Amino acid sequence: MAKKNDSNETAPAIQGFSLSHNMSVRELSAQMRGAGLQATQVGKASEIIHQMQKDKATIILTFTTNLVSSGLRETFAQLVQKKRVQCIITAIGSVEEDVMKTLVPFEQGSFDADDWQLHEQGRNRVGNIIIPNAAYEKLEGVLQPFFEKELAKQKKIGRLLAPHEIIRDLGLEMKDEKSFVFWAAKNNIPIFCPAPTDGAFGLQLYFFKQKHPEFGIDVSGDLKPLGQLILDADKTGGIILGGGVAKHHAIGCNLLRDGFDYAVYVSTGTPYDGSLSGARVNEAVSWGKVSEKAQIVHVEADASIVFPLLACGMLE
Amino acid sequence: MAKKNDSNETAPAIQGFSLSHNMSVRELSAQMRGAGLQATQVGKASEIIHQMQKDKATIILTFTTNLVSSGLRETFAQLVQKKRVQCIITAIGSVEEDVMKTLVPFEQGSFDADDWQLHEQGRNRVGNIIIPNAAYEKLEGVLQPFFEKELAKQKKIGRLLAPHEIIRDLGLEMKDEKSFVFWAAKNNIPIFCPAPTDGAFGLQLYFFKQKHPEFGIDVSGDLKPLGQLILDADKTGGIILGGGVAKHHAIGCNLLRDGFDYAVYVSTGTPYDGSLSGARVNEAVSWGKVSEKAQIVHVEADASIVFPLLACGMLE
Amino acid sequence: MAKKNDSNETAPAIQGFSLSHNMSVRELSAQMRGAGLQATQVGKASEIIHQMQKDKATIILTFTTNLVSSGLRETFAQLVQKKRVQCIITAIGSVEEDVMKTLVPFEQGSFDADDWQLHEQGRNRVGNIIIPNAAYEKLEGVLQPFFEKELAKQKKIGRLLAPHEIIRDLGLEMKDEKSFVFWAAKNNIPIFCPAPTDGAFGLQLYFFKQKHPEFGIDVSGDLKPLGQLILDADKTGGIILGGGVAKHHAIGCNLLRDGFDYAVYVSTGTPYDGSLSGARVNEAVSWGKVSEKAQIVHVEADASIVFPLLACGMLE
Amino acid sequence: MAKKNDSNETAPAIQGFSLSHNMSVRELSAQMRGAGLQATQVGKASEIIHQMQKDKATIILTFTTNLVSSGLRETFAQLVQKKRVQCIITAIGSVEEDVMKTLVPFEQGSFDADDWQLHEQGRNRVGNIIIPNAAYEKLEGVLQPFFEKELAKQKKIGRLLAPHEIIRDLGLEMKDEKSFVFWAAKNNIPIFCPAPTDGAFGLQLYFFKQKHPEFGIDVSGDLKPLGQLILDADKTGGIILGGGVAKHHAIGCNLLRDGFDYAVYVSTGTPYDGSLSGARVNEAVSWGKVSEKAQIVHVEADASIVFPLLACGMLE
Repeated sequence: MAKKNDSNETAPAIQGFSLSHNMSVRELSAQMRGAGLQATQVGKASEIIHQMQKDKATIILTFTTNLVSSGLRETFAQLVQKKRVQCIITAIGSVEEDVMKTLVPFEQGSFDADDWQLHEQGRNRVGNIIIPNAAYEKLEGVLQPFFEKELAKQKKIGRLLAPHEIIRDLGLEMKDEKSFVFWAAKNNIPIFCPAPTDGAFGLQLYFFKQKHPEFGIDVSGDLKPLGQLILDADKTGGIILGGGVAKHHAIGCNLLRDGFDYAVYVSTGTPYDGSLSGARVNEAVSWGKVSEKAQIVHVEADASIVFPLLACGMLE
Repeated sequence: MAKKNDSNETAPAIQGFSLSHNMSVRELSAQMRGAGLQATQVGKASEIIHQMQKDKATIILTFTTNLVSSGLRETFAQLVQKKRVQCIITAIGSVEEDVMKTLVPFEQGSFDADDWQLHEQGRNRVGNIIIPNAAYEKLEGVLQPFFEKELAKQKKIGRLLAPHEIIRDLGLEMKDEKSFVFWAAKNNIPIFCPAPTDGAFGLQLYFFKQKHPEFGIDVSGDLKPLGQLILDADKTGGIILGGGVAKHHAIGCNLLRDGFDYAVYVSTGTPYDGSLSGARVNEAVSWGKVSEKAQIVHVEADASIVFPLLACGMLE
Repeated sequence: MAKKNDSNETAPAIQGFSLSHNMSVRELSAQMRGAGLQATQVGKASEIIHQMQKDKATIILTFTTNLVSSGLRETFAQLVQKKRVQCIITAIGSVEEDVMKTLVPFEQGSFDADDWQLHEQGRNRVGNIIIPNAAYEKLEGVLQPFFEKELAKQKKIGRLLAPHEIIRDLGLEMKDEKSFVFWAAKNNIPIFCPAPTDGAFGLQLYFFKQKHPEFGIDVSGDLKPLGQLILDADKTGGIILGGGVAKHHAIGCNLLRDGFDYAVYVSTGTPYDGSLSGARVNEAVSWGKVSEKAQIVHVEADASIVFPLLACGMLE
Repeated sequence: MAKKNDSNETAPAIQGFSLSHNMSVRELSAQMRGAGLQATQVGKASEIIHQMQKDKATIILTFTTNLVSSGLRETFAQLVQKKRVQCIITAIGSVEEDVMKTLVPFEQGSFDADDWQLHEQGRNRVGNIIIPNAAYEKLEGVLQPFFEKELAKQKKIGRLLAPHEIIRDLGLEMKDEKSFVFWAAKNNIPIFCPAPTDGAFGLQLYFFKQKHPEFGIDVSGDLKPLGQLILDADKTGGIILGGGVAKHHAIGCNLLRDGFDYAVYVSTGTPYDGSLSGARVNEAVSWGKVSEKAQIVHVEADASIVFPLLACGMLE
C-alpha cells in the first residue's frame, strides 16, 4: 500500500533542465519530471495519464467553464474526437459556451479592464477573455427552439429528461468540429452535469418555463448511467481540471467502487480553507474517493498553461 | 455612476490600529476600515452589510459546504433564526452536513493528517476537520425514510419536487436549534440548491432510486421562486462566502433585475485563472450581475476568520 | 516528541460559534480555536503566543514592509513600547516607512487604481495604500543629514556601522510615539535588517555615496548580536508575519540553538512552489530551524486581518 | 502612452489550441498567446522577452533561491553562458546552493514528507526537494578557506568587499559548467546580492567572524556598479522570477532611469495583501520603477513550469 510518508532512502537526484531552441513539448515534459517544484508535478501528471491510457482505464475528465472560455475548448474537442476520454463532467456553462463559440467568437481582453466600461459596451469578462452580448443573444436563438423540441420529447416519453440526455440532444444538432459537445454526442461519450439550471442555460430555461411550466429537468437521471460507467470500469482515472461541483461529483461517484485508480488534479486553489476546490488528492484518499493504492498527483497551476503540456502526451 | 478608477483626490489617511486587551469585535472591525490592505476590505464589508440591513435589502447568503463543516454552521443558524438573511443558496453538501451534525459531532483534525491512516479509521477529512463514517451511516438512516415520504408526496402532487421544497421538508423534520436548515424551514426562508444530486445526498438518492427509479428531482423548479424573490425585492444584497455554483447562481439570477445593489465577496480564490470562484465583484459588473451603482467589496481570506467579524455586526 | 501524523484518537469536537453583538475580540479568538479551518489556526496562534509570554521566551517579531504601510505600524509600536517582543527583524523599507509616516500621512487607495494615472499624480501604490511622493521628498531631508552624522561616527570608531546600529541611531532622533523604530531605540530592542541598501533608504545611500564613497554599511555586523540574543535565550519564540528575507533570517539564526521553541507564521504564500515565503512551519522542522518539540502553527491569511486579533491578546 | 483601461475595440479572437503529439515548445508558446487566461500571459511574456533581445536591452534576471534548488539552476547557467542576460540579482541562498550542487546532488522528495523524520535523517526540505546535510558540511569546507582569501584581499585593498565582488571571486574558483555563478564570473556578468549575510553563507560567515571579527561585507558596495549598469543601458528589461528582495531591488534601481522598459514577472503571490512579492507590474508603474510606456506582463504560476517555456525562446 502506498503510504504517505515513506521516505525514499534512495531518492533520485534533482535533474537540471537541458533546454534547446527546437525541443519538443514531450521532451520538456519528460525533463520536468526530475526538476523539482511544480515542474515535477507536471512530469508526474504526464506519466500517470500515460499509465491510465496504457491500462485502458475509463478516463473521466472534469473542467470548469472558464477553461471552455479559453482555447482549451478545442483541446477538449480534440480529445473527445479521438476518444481519449470516456466521460465528461462539467458545469452547464461549459456546454453553453461551447455552443456560443460556434456562433460568435470570444475576444482577448485584459484582467485589468474597466468593468463599468465593458458593461456599457455589452462585453462580459471572464478573466482576460471577453464574451460579447451578441453571443448570448444568439444562444437564445438556439436554445428556445431547442427547448421546444425537448419539451415535445419529454411529453412523448412521459418523463423529464436528464442533463446528459439534453446535452447529447444539443450536441446532435451541432456541426462544429471544434466543439466538444458535438464530438461527445457523435462518439457517444456522455457529458454529465449536476447543475444544469445554472448560467445562461438556466436563464433561458427560466424564460422558457414562463410559457411552459411543465418543462423540467430530472437532475437525478444522471446518477444511474454515471454510476454504471463507474461500476463497469476495470480501472477509473480522473483528470480533474479546476474545482467546483464537477470535481466533487467525479470523485464522489467513485465511492461506488474503491475510488479512482489514478487521479491527476490541476488547480489553483488552496487546501488551507478546507474547500473542495482547493483540496489535494490525498484528502480524497481519506474519503475513499481515490483508492489507497492509486497513482496520484496534484499540479498547482492554471490549467491553461499545464493542460496543453499534458494533452500533447495524450494525442500519441 | 461609480467609476472604477476615479482617484479620490482627498483620500482619507491610513489609520493606525489602537488596540486594547478588552476591546470589542465591533470596535476592531471599525478600526480595520482605515488600516489598509485586507483589514480595510473587512471594514468595508462590515459597512456595506450594515447598509444592506438599513436599506432593508433582500439579502441572499451563499456559502460552500466546508463552511458548514466548520463552526460557521451555527452562525448561519443564528442569522436565519433572527431573519437576518432572506434566502440561502448553497451546495447540497451544506444541507447534508447540517443534518449530520445533529447526529454525530465532527472532530478537530489537522491539515497534515495521514489520509491513508484516516481512511483505515473511517475518518473523512475536510481541511483540518474530520467527519466520522458514523455520521454518514446515520445520515442514511435519516434519508432513506425521508425519500420514501418525498416519493409519496411526488406521487400525490403529480410532479417532481424542486430542491428547495425537498430541503424545506427535511428542515421541518429537524429539531436542532443549531441547524440552519431547521430555522430556514421554520422561518420560511428558502434554501435553493442548483446541484441537489451531488455529495452523500446524491449517493443516497442513487441507492434509493435502485428500488424507486420513478423518484426524481426537478432542479428547474427552483428557478421561478428564486426569480420571483429577486424581482419582488426593492434592493438585493449578496453575501457570498467562497465560490462554486452557489456563488454563480446568486449573481446570475440578479440578471433578472439590474444586478445586486450590494455585494460582499469573501474568498480565497485568485482572479488570474478566470475562474468564477476567484472572480472579484467588479468582473460581475461587466456582466450586469452586480449593478454599476452597487456598493461592493471583495475580502481575500478564509471566511472562517472573516465572517464571524461581519456576523457580529449583523446581530445588532 | 511531537510527531506529525499522530492521529488524535480522542479528538475534540468542532465547536460552533456563538456570537453576540457586543462580544470581545478575546472571546472571539477563544471561540475560533474549536471552529475548524483557518479560524482554528488563529485560535492556536493566540494560544501559542500566550504560552511564549508565560514562559518568558525571547520573542522575535518579523514583518514585511507592506505591514508598516498599513495600520499595523502602530501595533508594532505598541508592542515594542510595552516590551512584548525582544527583537525585530524586518526589511529596510519598514524602517523608512515608519520614518515617513512621521512626516506625511499615507492615504487609503484602491487595489484597482489606475497606476498610470497615479504615477502622473506622484502617488505610489502599495496594494490599496498610497504613499505620496512628498513622503519620499521629506525622507530625503531626514536621511541625507543623518548619513552625514553616521559617516562622522564611522570615521570616529574606525569601522563601518552595522544595520542595527544605524537603525537605532535613526530611532534616537525620532519623537513619534506611534513609531516602532522610536520605541525600539528607546527600549533597547534591536532591529536587525539583512538587506539595508534596498528601498528608498538604499537609493538615498546611493546618492550620498556619490560624494562620500567611503561611507558604507557592514551588514555582517548584525550577525554577532543577533546570534548572541539567540544563544542567551532560555526559549525563543517567533512571530513571523509575511515572508521575505526577514522570515528566513529569523528562522535561520535559530540554527545556532535547536531551533525556535515556538513559531507562529501568518502568511498568504503557497508552500507548493517551494518558496521560503510560502513555506509552512513544518518545513523549518526538517532544517532544525524550528525545534522538533516546538509548538507551531501556520495561519494562511493577510496579517492585517489576523495580527490585530493576536495582538489584543499580547497586550494583557 | 500605454493606458491601463483602453478597451481594444477590435480585440483579436480567442484562439483554440491545435495540439499535436510532436509539436515544439516554441509552437506551443505561440499558440498560448491567443488562448486566454494564464496561457495568454505566458505567450505575451515570450513575446516581450523576444522584443527585449531584439532591442538589445540590458536584461536583469532575478530569482529566488528555491529556483536554484530546482532544475532551473542549469537553465540560469545556460543563459549566462550564452550571455542572454547582462545582470543577475538574487538571494545569497542561490549562490550557496549553486556551489553546493557542485558537491552533493539534491534529491527529489515530496511536499507531504514527514519533516520530523527528515530532520532525524539530516535531510532538509525545500518544497518537494531535499538537500542532504552533507551538502552543508561540504559547503563549510569550501567557504571557510574562501573567507580566508577574501579577508586577505580585504586587508590588501584596505576596504570591505561588496557582495558582487565576493560572489565573483567565488565563481572564479569554480569549475562546473552547470553553475551560473561559474559562468557569471567567467563572462563578467555581475551577480548582485542585497542580503549577503542570510542563509548558510551568513552562518558560515558568523562562524568565521568568531576568529576574524575584522572581516566584513560592505553591502553598499553593490550600489554604484548596479546603478551604473542601469544608467548606461539604452533600454532595460526585467525578468523577475518569484518575489523577495531580489525583485524589489531590481525594480527599485530602475528609478535611476524612467523605470524598466520591459518587465516580465512570474510569481505565485497575491497582490491583495499589498506585498511586494505579490505585486503586479502595474503597481510598479505607479512608482516609476517600470516605465509608463513599458511592455509588461505578469504570469501567475510557479516559474519551474513557466520559465523553461520562456527560456527555450531565449536560446535561439
